[in-house]
Amino acid sequence: MPEQKTALVISAHAADFVWRCGGAIALHAEQGFAVTVVCLSFGERGESAKLWKQDDMTLERVKEVRRAEAESAARALGVHDLICFDMGDYPLEFDRASKDRLVSVMRAVQPAFMLSHSRFDPYNTDHMLTTQVVMECRSTAQAWGHNPGERVLGAPQLYLFEPHQTEQMGWKPDTFLDITPAWDRKLAAIQCMEGQEHLWQYYTNVAQNRANHFMRNSGGQSGGRKAQYAEGFESVYPRTVDTL
Amino acid sequence: MPEQKTALVISAHAADFVWRCGGAIALHAEQGFAVTVVCLSFGERGESAKLWKQDDMTLERVKEVRRAEAESAARALGVHDLICFDMGDYPLEFDRASKDRLVSVMRAVQPAFMLSHSRFDPYNTDHMLTTQVVMECRSTAQAWGHNPGERVLGAPQLYLFEPHQTEQMGWKPDTFLDITPAWDRKLAAIQCMEGQEHLWQYYTNVAQNRANHFMRNSGGQSGGRKAQYAEGFESVYPRTVDTL
Amino acid sequence: MPEQKTALVISAHAADFVWRCGGAIALHAEQGFAVTVVCLSFGERGESAKLWKQDDMTLERVKEVRRAEAESAARALGVHDLICFDMGDYPLEFDRASKDRLVSVMRAVQPAFMLSHSRFDPYNTDHMLTTQVVMECRSTAQAWGHNPGERVLGAPQLYLFEPHQTEQMGWKPDTFLDITPAWDRKLAAIQCMEGQEHLWQYYTNVAQNRANHFMRNSGGQSGGRKAQYAEGFESVYPRTVDTL
Amino acid sequence: MPEQKTALVISAHAADFVWRCGGAIALHAEQGFAVTVVCLSFGERGESAKLWKQDDMTLERVKEVRRAEAESAARALGVHDLICFDMGDYPLEFDRASKDRLVSVMRAVQPAFMLSHSRFDPYNTDHMLTTQVVMECRSTAQAWGHNPGERVLGAPQLYLFEPHQTEQMGWKPDTFLDITPAWDRKLAAIQCMEGQEHLWQYYTNVAQNRANHFMRNSGGQSGGRKAQYAEGFESVYPRTVDTL
Amino acid sequence: MPEQKTALVISAHAADFVWRCGGAIALHAEQGFAVTVVCLSFGERGESAKLWKQDDMTLERVKEVRRAEAESAARALGVHDLICFDMGDYPLEFDRASKDRLVSVMRAVQPAFMLSHSRFDPYNTDHMLTTQVVMECRSTAQAWGHNPGERVLGAPQLYLFEPHQTEQMGWKPDTFLDITPAWDRKLAAIQCMEGQEHLWQYYTNVAQNRANHFMRNSGGQSGGRKAQYAEGFESVYPRTVDTL
Amino acid sequence: MPEQKTALVISAHAADFVWRCGGAIALHAEQGFAVTVVCLSFGERGESAKLWKQDDMTLERVKEVRRAEAESAARALGVHDLICFDMGDYPLEFDRASKDRLVSVMRAVQPAFMLSHSRFDPYNTDHMLTTQVVMECRSTAQAWGHNPGERVLGAPQLYLFEPHQTEQMGWKPDTFLDITPAWDRKLAAIQCMEGQEHLWQYYTNVAQNRANHFMRNSGGQSGGRKAQYAEGFESVYPRTVDTL
Repeated sequence: MPEQKTALVISAHAADFVWRCGGAIALHAEQGFAVTVVCLSFGERGESAKLWKQDDMTLERVKEVRRAEAESAARALGVHDLICFDMGDYPLEFDRASKDRLVSVMRAVQPAFMLSHSRFDPYNTDHMLTTQVVMECRSTAQAWGHNPGERVLGAPQLYLFEPHQTEQMGWKPDTFLDITPAWDRKLAAIQCMEGQEHLWQYYTNVAQNRANHFMRNSGGQSGGRKAQYAEGFESVYPRTVDTL
Repeated sequence: MPEQKTALVISAHAADFVWRCGGAIALHAEQGFAVTVVCLSFGERGESAKLWKQDDMTLERVKEVRRAEAESAARALGVHDLICFDMGDYPLEFDRASKDRLVSVMRAVQPAFMLSHSRFDPYNTDHMLTTQVVMECRSTAQAWGHNPGERVLGAPQLYLFEPHQTEQMGWKPDTFLDITPAWDRKLAAIQCMEGQEHLWQYYTNVAQNRANHFMRNSGGQSGGRKAQYAEGFESVYPRTVDTL
Repeated sequence: MPEQKTALVISAHAADFVWRCGGAIALHAEQGFAVTVVCLSFGERGESAKLWKQDDMTLERVKEVRRAEAESAARALGVHDLICFDMGDYPLEFDRASKDRLVSVMRAVQPAFMLSHSRFDPYNTDHMLTTQVVMECRSTAQAWGHNPGERVLGAPQLYLFEPHQTEQMGWKPDTFLDITPAWDRKLAAIQCMEGQEHLWQYYTNVAQNRANHFMRNSGGQSGGRKAQYAEGFESVYPRTVDTL
Repeated sequence: MPEQKTALVISAHAADFVWRCGGAIALHAEQGFAVTVVCLSFGERGESAKLWKQDDMTLERVKEVRRAEAESAARALGVHDLICFDMGDYPLEFDRASKDRLVSVMRAVQPAFMLSHSRFDPYNTDHMLTTQVVMECRSTAQAWGHNPGERVLGAPQLYLFEPHQTEQMGWKPDTFLDITPAWDRKLAAIQCMEGQEHLWQYYTNVAQNRANHFMRNSGGQSGGRKAQYAEGFESVYPRTVDTL
Repeated sequence: MPEQKTALVISAHAADFVWRCGGAIALHAEQGFAVTVVCLSFGERGESAKLWKQDDMTLERVKEVRRAEAESAARALGVHDLICFDMGDYPLEFDRASKDRLVSVMRAVQPAFMLSHSRFDPYNTDHMLTTQVVMECRSTAQAWGHNPGERVLGAPQLYLFEPHQTEQMGWKPDTFLDITPAWDRKLAAIQCMEGQEHLWQYYTNVAQNRANHFMRNSGGQSGGRKAQYAEGFESVYPRTVDTL
Repeated sequence: MPEQKTALVISAHAADFVWRCGGAIALHAEQGFAVTVVCLSFGERGESAKLWKQDDMTLERVKEVRRAEAESAARALGVHDLICFDMGDYPLEFDRASKDRLVSVMRAVQPAFMLSHSRFDPYNTDHMLTTQVVMECRSTAQAWGHNPGERVLGAPQLYLFEPHQTEQMGWKPDTFLDITPAWDRKLAAIQCMEGQEHLWQYYTNVAQNRANHFMRNSGGQSGGRKAQYAEGFESVYPRTVDTL
């Protein structure tokens, strides 16, 4: 029996995996991938303004609500495993233990590819720190002398998913994924994020416009494929191929 | 019967297609692609120093020798069609007619992908001008109002092949192609370039070292594939995919 | 009586000024600016696929239709003067006369600011060539010895309006303009572009999402202004100010 | 009564705010802004060579001298509040407490804009670390769940002031401020920095040459304004405007 | 007898060689280099505002004045040969003949190094076009088949001298030259440029501040050399050395 | 008696100094430089896969083997002093004590130049962290108030040696060093690295191809010097010179 294909998403805050790669998750889940999502924090301090505007709110209650939303969204997308590191946010702070934990997840999952944030983000330094640590942990997970005896990591691609305000982050997509078949599930997951309703329409617009880019780059007016919804990704590492 | 797959190489000088993408040509030819190569010039003035050091050399004789070498190399690689524009080199100069001719070739070939030079080259401005014109001609070939009635071009990827002194050109490969199965033919083509024997070893070294990069990026010490020879390419446009 | 304020838009093809800065035009027209729009071509060959798919279409008929659309859009936006250079498109080719004509327009208009395309565009080389020539003509228009006796140009800002697929063009907006008060006129102008109906929704989405960026950058969840529609621009030159 | 306008300067070492934005401080103070300056260190180890060349110098004495100079300069510039964090320099090291303190200052001041160092500085890593932390603290100060109940920060612009050897730092000014009316006070503040007399003429030259840039960008030979002294700044975030 | 060392400066307008590398010229002349300066134009249209503000000025008179100034400056600097191409300015336009002429000069001079403008200049497109053509002509001059029989060019470094508003041009100096011994001659040459008196102080300030950079990079407070005046240059090509 | 010239290499892992600058070390040792090499770690976890594939391997045994290899290589190259910090690898972690130790080495050695890793490396974050810390420690070593009384550091150049997969690291060499006279010793040192035999041929190829670049940049077909082996370096800081 062939080994199941796997993928790994590292999300700084609880909702990032929904807006930024929910379509990719749902689509690959349907294709038989077991997709693991790591949420480093719940975004409880920095991405929950609506909750904090309520009376008598506490950090624990915000985290509970955000955890519940993330779990609902993960179910909607067909996530195989949702792992909440609960590291705190704004700012995220990585110690050696949290890095080792992420290395262990990488090795356990053995992902065909990984997904995380853009390299630069002057609005949200948690995002760029996450990607820096993901690159570090990928190196460590490849090291034969780290926890010798464990299966070391290969060389999975790291795709950077779409940040908010792409141009300010220096993010340039080189891969467009047609998520039309998975859109209903991405939309369902988006609608789990009740605390950030102001972003529902925003990311629907993004998906529609990325579909336009999908069509342009697959042939345009002369044979391009009419995707309805798409997501864009930037690759960190080169691909290795047998045909161009 | 399905249409044959095609590819198009645009080479500023007669030998560029050999050093820089001879493996890709031979490999795809073997895979059933009809590969067309356009040589804009013979490199007769700027890349034929060895010939010019002979007594009584003339421009016409240099061009004949270089044409013969290019034809031999094309045969060795299994090129479907070698088209020599004979535009003169150092500097290449494009007028409207030569651009229109290139547009016509693009439309006639309808390539699945194209290959040409790096965007920047302070050592050889013919190279960077070529890529600039290739991008312009790709736009024109996509224009429904250019020679209406002809089949317009889709949106083929443009791969930039490896320049000499890559770092000076700001060229960054994002795709490594395993050319091991085609190496014997690339080597044979290289050896047709008698006027530039000083580059034979150089490009053999390049192919071996790119194979190391192929292995690293396909899994490294943990499952990477041991290619013997590879070529690297930089993509200009995003890819459109159904699976990451 | 104070001199009327003016602005100048240089648009490679007939519709670019609508999608990319129609809101800025309408808004400034309402604020009392006389906005001149130069269309270098009608986009007759490269941006009129829908027309060319009709039977018995000719270049002249395409140009007529496109001119009519541009004129309607200009009226909807309150453009002061629409000047069609009719230079042909795909590719645009500038000779000395067309450059001199553009210099003369710059001097006649004496714009407070200018608007044109992104610096780089691998999909559409007409766009990047236009901006390169605009920068050249701005220099010439500032030269006291060019047509001595004419009023020379000052140092108007050149704003680069939003290209299609912004990240591929290396375009980074540094200025967001709230076009909510002018949206109805921009939408009316968009709807004049009957040949490119597939872009109506696309640029509505863009305007909505840029409004989100407007809000984020004007204060976000803590006092940001809720614009409904916005446009983004990249400045070429520094600003000179008396207060930060 | 309207709220007073405020600005916040974050200076890695005691003298940076003088050389790099003393004109902006004095000018805005005169315009009614309450300008707060945070000095993270006194530059006691790394920017006090002249003092250390004296006999029997101690760290405490250097800090006293530098503090006194900074206070004199602040008075000369009309600084509203000078806050010395006394974190030590070469290298600066931020712990969570010092970051939280900076967040608190940002929230207390509620600045209309902030000023700090360039993003990159291979000569002085304290400088680039400071800006990285300022961006992180800006995020935290915007987080509703950080010290809930406090007034959260809006989205103030972060201007990067002029580093030494601008080109090596990749710093590109996009805003020139005419500081002619405030020059006498900037010069007085500069002259408070007795330990770095070798820089007095240097930064006078800078201010004169930036004034030339001010004139060029405000109209040049055709209507540009003849500033005598200016300062340049690079913006991190886009502006939001109602008129271009 | 050893061959005399030579250098070649390519200046878009008559005064550029004075402001931007007058010190390098004078210094190397004193060191025994024969320095040839090519002025492509007199800057008669675009850099002679002061002259054009006089009554009854004509293009010929402007050119005469500018030529005389350039000749005086060249004498002051010890230029070996001043060659005026008189191609016209704003915009410079290169045809094949002017390029061939530049190639011939390169071959005749056989410079140890060349000096020209920055790669990018949105204020003055003549400048960036010049450098682009210099790179092209360097390639052609190296081509054995261009005018066979002539001595071909080696691989001289191309130094890009300091543009106005360096940061806007993306110019980054990697080499500082101490011109203190030649400053009196540079100043004398500057003072020949009577039409641009507003730049005398500006470029004196530049030279003083570059001397500060010279000191910092040669050892700073610990053994750096106290240059009084310096010039900065950006290298296009790598150096080849026997010792680091 | 003149002071002996010195150089300092900072190598993240035990073998980096061999592949990346072994030629420079041997060549300068022969020229009379005392070259100190700091190995921050042995690469025991991340660069010793071959050893870890053996049975019953332990971290201590790997470190012993790697230390012995490094010592042998250092002897082969003529290293003056090999200092092993034994900080651990994958990931390297710098605390204040290890930084202070590096500062002390810099001051004790007083190097004419330093050599370390590229600024960016998404495959190996130890490498880029090292260079960041080297820049920080260079600043601290220049600070008169750090351990007052010690001889402070001047302004030594920092050369970045060649990383693996240069283009992915954004590394651009600006200096090529002819290491032909030292090649036999570099090869001997390479052959000490028994655990990484797969890299012997790779770095021989690199040295040969860099020699081609040396020839091209020293004159090419017209007088270029035929080096057999070379190494490339990127400078962080500008040079200060008396002749271009």
